[in-house]
Amino acid sequence: MQMKKVVLFLSLIGIISATNAQQALFGGPKVKSPEINPDNTVTLRIFAPNANEVTVTGDFLQPITSESNNDKIDRPEAVNLIKGEDGVWSYITPYPLPPELYMYSFNVDGLRMMDPANVYMNRDVATVTNIFLIDEPGSRAHNYRVNDVPHGTVSRVWYNSPGLDKNRRMTIYTPPGYEDSNDSYPVFYLLHGAGGDEEAWISLGRTAQILDNLIAQGKAEPMIVVMTNGNPSQEAAPGENSKGFIQPGMDISGMNAGEFETSFPDVINYVDKHYRTKADKAHRAIAGLSMGGFHSLHTSKLYPDLFDYIGLFSAAIFPFEGRDKAPVYQDFEGKLKTQFEKNPKLYFIAIGDKDFLYNDNVKFREILDSNGYPYEYFETPEGHIWKNWRIYLNEFAPKLFK
Amino acid sequence: MQMKKVVLFLSLIGIISATNAQQALFGGPKVKSPEINPDNTVTLRIFAPNANEVTVTGDFLQPITSESNNDKIDRPEAVNLIKGEDGVWSYITPYPLPPELYMYSFNVDGLRMMDPANVYMNRDVATVTNIFLIDEPGSRAHNYRVNDVPHGTVSRVWYNSPGLDKNRRMTIYTPPGYEDSNDSYPVFYLLHGAGGDEEAWISLGRTAQILDNLIAQGKAEPMIVVMTNGNPSQEAAPGENSKGFIQPGMDISGMNAGEFETSFPDVINYVDKHYRTKADKAHRAIAGLSMGGFHSLHTSKLYPDLFDYIGLFSAAIFPFEGRDKAPVYQDFEGKLKTQFEKNPKLYFIAIGDKDFLYNDNVKFREILDSNGYPYEYFETPEGHIWKNWRIYLNEFAPKLFK
Repeated sequence: MQMKKVVLFLSLIGIISATNAQQALFGGPKVKSPEINPDNTVTLRIFAPNANEVTVTGDFLQPITSESNNDKIDRPEAVNLIKGEDGVWSYITPYPLPPELYMYSFNVDGLRMMDPANVYMNRDVATVTNIFLIDEPGSRAHNYRVNDVPHGTVSRVWYNSPGLDKNRRMTIYTPPGYEDSNDSYPVFYLLHGAGGDEEAWISLGRTAQILDNLIAQGKAEPMIVVMTNGNPSQEAAPGENSKGFIQPGMDISGMNAGEFETSFPDVINYVDKHYRTKADKAHRAIAGLSMGGFHSLHTSKLYPDLFDYIGLFSAAIFPFEGRDKAPVYQDFEGKLKTQFEKNPKLYFIAIGDKDFLYNDNVKFREILDSNGYPYEYFETPEGHIWKNWRIYLNEFAPKLFK
Repeated sequence: MQMKKVVLFLSLIGIISATNAQQALFGGPKVKSPEINPDNTVTLRIFAPNANEVTVTGDFLQPITSESNNDKIDRPEAVNLIKGEDGVWSYITPYPLPPELYMYSFNVDGLRMMDPANVYMNRDVATVTNIFLIDEPGSRAHNYRVNDVPHGTVSRVWYNSPGLDKNRRMTIYTPPGYEDSNDSYPVFYLLHGAGGDEEAWISLGRTAQILDNLIAQGKAEPMIVVMTNGNPSQEAAPGENSKGFIQPGMDISGMNAGEFETSFPDVINYVDKHYRTKADKAHRAIAGLSMGGFHSLHTSKLYPDLFDYIGLFSAAIFPFEGRDKAPVYQDFEGKLKTQFEKNPKLYFIAIGDKDFLYNDNVKFREILDSNGYPYEYFETPEGHIWKNWRIYLNEFAPKLFK
């Protein structure tokens, strides 16, 4: 009787729900996928009894060669799953995977689809992919997972930006202990790329996990991390603004006329007013990926007294022709000179050797070199991908505020 | 040249990415789906040139009859999409849809899948479905969307619970203006059901949107809303705790031995210490759905001096036999008597007329009636579904702290 009631409860609450339609929604056979095997090979499975061909693609597929330098890795496009008698298709990687956060998606008879057995996904612009993590204690990827360490608080905060004439949303990480101390903290402004928004670094970038772990390991100082929305046309991420559930798309309003850079003090003013910050150059960092690297470069030289730490991750460097007329972008070398005369403590440039922005970064480093401006340079394999941006964050954050 | 560079930039950053595998991940033809037509019919589309049959199921399908009282609505299981010559399958609802937040999923040749053109989804336990909103100004569903009104802050906060011997995560909404005032605010504790977690109310329940809108309309008082994790076995939602990306499942640890209820002061103590609260019974509410209604019932009578506002949404009422030995659940009527002798300002019971817990709620109301304990009763059509819980939140919040 007791068991019967528990079973009734389990079968009725939540999973199997109140309408026929919902029973159809919630039903379907279950398989385990992905399964991370003890040797770090991974098995992917999908129940598709009527399918003729099932393939999987993802960045877990081993590169065949990596000799080209054209922003490509020669990886198989996809590999085939094998059908079992039970209608379950499966694929097991013939090699153990190095610790990393991987993404993948299935293709069933030509139709791209998510893994129905895996609720973990990332959205990158308008594309959603499944993810899994290969973990190994001590590895970099171990910093991407939630570990049993003190955790910071992650808040979605609305602020008014007079410079953009909008109420706007940002994501703010405060470090463990913030709520229970009266200390003031340094602030790291962390900016996304084109097509991204204030959700990008916290989801795809694993910022909260990386910071929690680096701080717990004593590698990074406790700091506030502020992740803005870099698109001046937007109030907030798609679905989080008053335009409704619109399809996310590319947005390069952030590279138009310098409004993001000129209005950046609106963000800093809000943060310094509402959080216990060390509100000076020595305790302020700015870094970003791609368009966010562009923003970090141009904002930091526009306001040379604001940031002692600057990070360009796979950065766009030069404004589009015709858009370089905005005052922000004029006198590139003059502004840079002023900035470096003020001796920022760290100017950090990171890029993948196959990034399509590699040559622009070479050109930029030549400008820095020819003027004797000091910077740190960090080069990784591969291209313009989130894997690299997580690596750069994990590398950059420990260098701050020391 | 400028245009060429912009196109190169657009085509390389973000969407089309750095590896072959990723190009495959990010590629594929695009269709618009869902399309909400001017008359509030909805068109759903999927590009599936090789498919033999495509259906869609969801709660937007019109009930055929609704005469049964067995927790079911007689809705079509699914309807067929029609294939076009371009390989795009489509379905248009033959009726306009009333304003509501709807969910749906496709089935292609027997395989359940998400709409590849729609990035908006909800996770309910281990099941992810696509969502869309039919909006109409002035409708209840209009409160489910982000409108151009002042927005509260939503934070994921970790606190220590000595009673559960864990660091645990909760979601906290502070109302618009909180950061810029020195006012103290009332607190509404809002609890999820079995299988849910501290993400359920903020995602499926649209709590931030409902509160933002009700407050902006002057219908609800500005209040703090605290959404806990109701599973004593968990630190945090799946994927957000140190167990990694585990498959979410049912969890009835919250209905085992009363630990959730007995340890609830840990939550209140944290909130009262770290937020500007009006820390008294008159400014404290507790409500929850299903298991969370059970928690609200038993916590509020265990601590009869803590809450002046109690809401049971489709509540489980009675503990499982054998589990009713926990002190929390003993002397049910005696504890209830003490609670009602202290005259709570509002005891609110809401349920759908097809809910599988309907009869238990009838039985509970008979106890209240026979003792002359006052309560408000709110009955809706349909069963144990999120649609109803959003309705109840929208109904209950305006009654608080007035």
